[in-house]
Amino acid sequence: MTIELLKNYLAGEWVAGQDPVTVLSDPVTGEALVRVSSAGLDLAHAFTFARERGGGALRAMSYGERAERLGAIAKLLQARRDDYHAIATANSGTTRNDSAVDIDGAIYTVGQYARWGAALGDARALLDGAAASLAKDGTFQSQHVLVPTRGVALFINAFNFPAWGLWEKAAPALLSGVPVIVKPATATAWLTQRMVADVVAADLLPAGALSVICGGSAGLLDALQPFDLVSFTGSAQTAAVIRSHPAVADRSVRVNIEADSLNSALLMPDAEPGSESFALFVREVVREMTVKSGQKCTAIRRALVPQAVYDAAAEAIATQLAGVSVGNPRNESVRMGALVNREQLENVRAGLAELRTQTKVLHDGSLAPLVDADPAVAACMAPTLLGTTTPDDADRVHRIEVFGPVATLMPYRDLPHAAALIRRGEGSLVASLYGAEPATLAGLAVDLADSHGRVHVVSPAVARTHSGHGNVMPQSLHGGPGRAGGGEELGGLRALGFYHRRAAVQAEPAVIGALGAVPLPQ
Amino acid sequence: MTIELLKNYLAGEWVAGQDPVTVLSDPVTGEALVRVSSAGLDLAHAFTFARERGGGALRAMSYGERAERLGAIAKLLQARRDDYHAIATANSGTTRNDSAVDIDGAIYTVGQYARWGAALGDARALLDGAAASLAKDGTFQSQHVLVPTRGVALFINAFNFPAWGLWEKAAPALLSGVPVIVKPATATAWLTQRMVADVVAADLLPAGALSVICGGSAGLLDALQPFDLVSFTGSAQTAAVIRSHPAVADRSVRVNIEADSLNSALLMPDAEPGSESFALFVREVVREMTVKSGQKCTAIRRALVPQAVYDAAAEAIATQLAGVSVGNPRNESVRMGALVNREQLENVRAGLAELRTQTKVLHDGSLAPLVDADPAVAACMAPTLLGTTTPDDADRVHRIEVFGPVATLMPYRDLPHAAALIRRGEGSLVASLYGAEPATLAGLAVDLADSHGRVHVVSPAVARTHSGHGNVMPQSLHGGPGRAGGGEELGGLRALGFYHRRAAVQAEPAVIGALGAVPLPQ
Repeated sequence: MTIELLKNYLAGEWVAGQDPVTVLSDPVTGEALVRVSSAGLDLAHAFTFARERGGGALRAMSYGERAERLGAIAKLLQARRDDYHAIATANSGTTRNDSAVDIDGAIYTVGQYARWGAALGDARALLDGAAASLAKDGTFQSQHVLVPTRGVALFINAFNFPAWGLWEKAAPALLSGVPVIVKPATATAWLTQRMVADVVAADLLPAGALSVICGGSAGLLDALQPFDLVSFTGSAQTAAVIRSHPAVADRSVRVNIEADSLNSALLMPDAEPGSESFALFVREVVREMTVKSGQKCTAIRRALVPQAVYDAAAEAIATQLAGVSVGNPRNESVRMGALVNREQLENVRAGLAELRTQTKVLHDGSLAPLVDADPAVAACMAPTLLGTTTPDDADRVHRIEVFGPVATLMPYRDLPHAAALIRRGEGSLVASLYGAEPATLAGLAVDLADSHGRVHVVSPAVARTHSGHGNVMPQSLHGGPGRAGGGEELGGLRALGFYHRRAAVQAEPAVIGALGAVPLPQ
Repeated sequence: MTIELLKNYLAGEWVAGQDPVTVLSDPVTGEALVRVSSAGLDLAHAFTFARERGGGALRAMSYGERAERLGAIAKLLQARRDDYHAIATANSGTTRNDSAVDIDGAIYTVGQYARWGAALGDARALLDGAAASLAKDGTFQSQHVLVPTRGVALFINAFNFPAWGLWEKAAPALLSGVPVIVKPATATAWLTQRMVADVVAADLLPAGALSVICGGSAGLLDALQPFDLVSFTGSAQTAAVIRSHPAVADRSVRVNIEADSLNSALLMPDAEPGSESFALFVREVVREMTVKSGQKCTAIRRALVPQAVYDAAAEAIATQLAGVSVGNPRNESVRMGALVNREQLENVRAGLAELRTQTKVLHDGSLAPLVDADPAVAACMAPTLLGTTTPDDADRVHRIEVFGPVATLMPYRDLPHAAALIRRGEGSLVASLYGAEPATLAGLAVDLADSHGRVHVVSPAVARTHSGHGNVMPQSLHGGPGRAGGGEELGGLRALGFYHRRAAVQAEPAVIGALGAVPLPQ
């Protein structure tokens, strides 16, 4: 039987790539699933078509009209949810709960942008702040406006979120009136491609508004022009290649990067074993190590505790990790499925070996049995907790992101020491704090804000309602400085900023009043 | 007599650079003025000192306290104004009016940021928007904050604005709590160095808050770390080098670029010769061609008029240009001084020759006599107006920025044609519109907003009060997409964004309420 070759959707048409093709497979069973290729595509034509036809049609619509389309997309994705879960199980090897983080997260995010966009109504441009007077008599004013860029947004995405990774970027782009070309990571491109195919088949967007390319990324950046954008999620190494590409260096193509991150969780000094904060901390570390097998860019990699509770924390986390069953996600007793493929499994093992040179193993997952999965075939591994009592010397735990079910526990002397250790990550997506004193928590949150895109504070009052260290809520900024790439995604309507150009209009009040734009809600 | 060697101010000390030195000279008389060198400086130490000592001291102050320092700086600069004008006359060859654009523009901008900053009061962090609820019962919220980055801001500046170029960047940086290291363009570094020296001598800022390096830029980018920033004003070529440098590509150093720009002025279709709009257009084109000898990145390079008034516009502009006296700025009859040096004079002549292959000369400045200046020595040239009746074919006028008193007149058929011609600049700092119908002007302003940082609308109602096509007001954004570099400067308190990091704090309301931040005014 020939395995299906997934087509690419470009310039309003489905196009098969040429040889060589890449086979996508099941990371648990090794079964071949589908094939992809982006070879031989006419990218220049596709980008021009997207820019002119797709962008023109989107910009002719109001924010409200584009929000309606997002609402219809959310509804469609919701209706096809079971199909997407089936693909995720097969291609990502994730349990239903873990697939939901990707799929339901995507649907929720699109739905939120549909709601927020509806409030912008009939306008086609946004007012940024109020008018400022430039003349003493008020006859001449300055008003900033935001208008959609007349380019195309290229998304080069990561393997771990084929659904959410598409929609958390596409929802604000499409709402802004900017057409999208998505290049999902090859290993899990199937789910992205299927979602685009469903939206195309349902005719929910103008031709050229949404395109998908499955396979290699050769030539994509060369097709970018000055008003285009590129949003990349992946390694710092590839990020550097993108930033140095002539499209970016010479043509001022706007770039958003989300790269490596050594996220931290911090148990506050006042939290003793037996306290609610201690329990919340332990639960979240275990959850973050195991959800999607630790393959979340926001997952906790470094867990910091007061020196006095280091042993107790190690024991509590290890005990919970020991209860996590790992293997084939089709078996209902399995809590943690596979890594995305054997290559990633080898990468994680190699990273773990590097960290082990500077740490002790507090809980060893390497020998845990797999449920319904062949260790020689499946890309499965149980979680491993490392620990170091000399975290100032262990430079690797602050630098090497092991993208799997691995975290390192470390003790701190006092809060300045803890903050200094966290800063050793040189910019992360998220830090979470676990404690019960609002003023101390607030002070530390502000202190850490410059080196994180998000600070997540868990106090007993929010034990049941907090959104989770690693869950990216569309209401909050996603991104981080330094090693994390310096990008900004989501954050409610803030996300529209990347896809808009800001300009100051200087004019008499009669002209300012006739701009036809609505205020961007704060 | 030995010519003074200007020292560099780094790590709280004045340091002389080593050989080789560069001599700065008078562009009118050729006289040697001062010498500079940045060779042999300990940059790594200087950057660390600025980051830790300067940044630490600045961040320990509130916005209000830092604004007070800016107020004191504005007062000091005002008191030393005559010194600065003397340096500008000697080193930039500019008339008093043209020097004022740089010097008084700088003082006004610092004063504005002092005022705006005072309103932020005692806070040390800013709230960005309102809190959003992340739980149905309101127990868990998301609040975005802005906090100063813990890095240093490196400014690599252009020769045409040694005063304003420093302060339009330093005012928002220092108000944000971020230390500054400025590397002025070598040719006119004297004025920048003197201003820094005055501020240092008056002890208005903490040690490490403001440093100056005069001479070459070798090694500067290598000293940048992940939380640092670099703001560059200059050529697109150097911009590409900066963007590709490992500090930026690998370490996510945040970059702001202001590069080439083919700014446009557009006379609206309804404006006939004899109308006030026509007169305003002609006056502004002449002013922009001649202020600072056209050495403003915002100067009008392309002047667009309806086909029917092309000849009348050419004649009116040429007549006014013929009345502009050029030469030694010390002679009170001189309206336009020198270019910055002979090298720039040669560059402008070369660029003019390139444009002339696709245009006609409507007013020839090449043969105009110079007042009190030797044509074999002085970097002076009178303004030249070019014209083309086939602007769609003349690709060079949309691409080559001749940084001197040169502009090209061109006719358009209708507004869509005019907008298409303006877009051929592929992103500019500013476009100005001259007409009398508010609705049409507003529509075109929004239409052009995506490819410009600023759209300046001149109607008869603002004949006396508008701020000028090329004047950069601190209230309005300065920057532009594409060829213009994609940067954003000024725009009131928006400028603080570049020097702050945005983060979402997710927490219970008691923590959000204890953040101690004030709302960023919109």
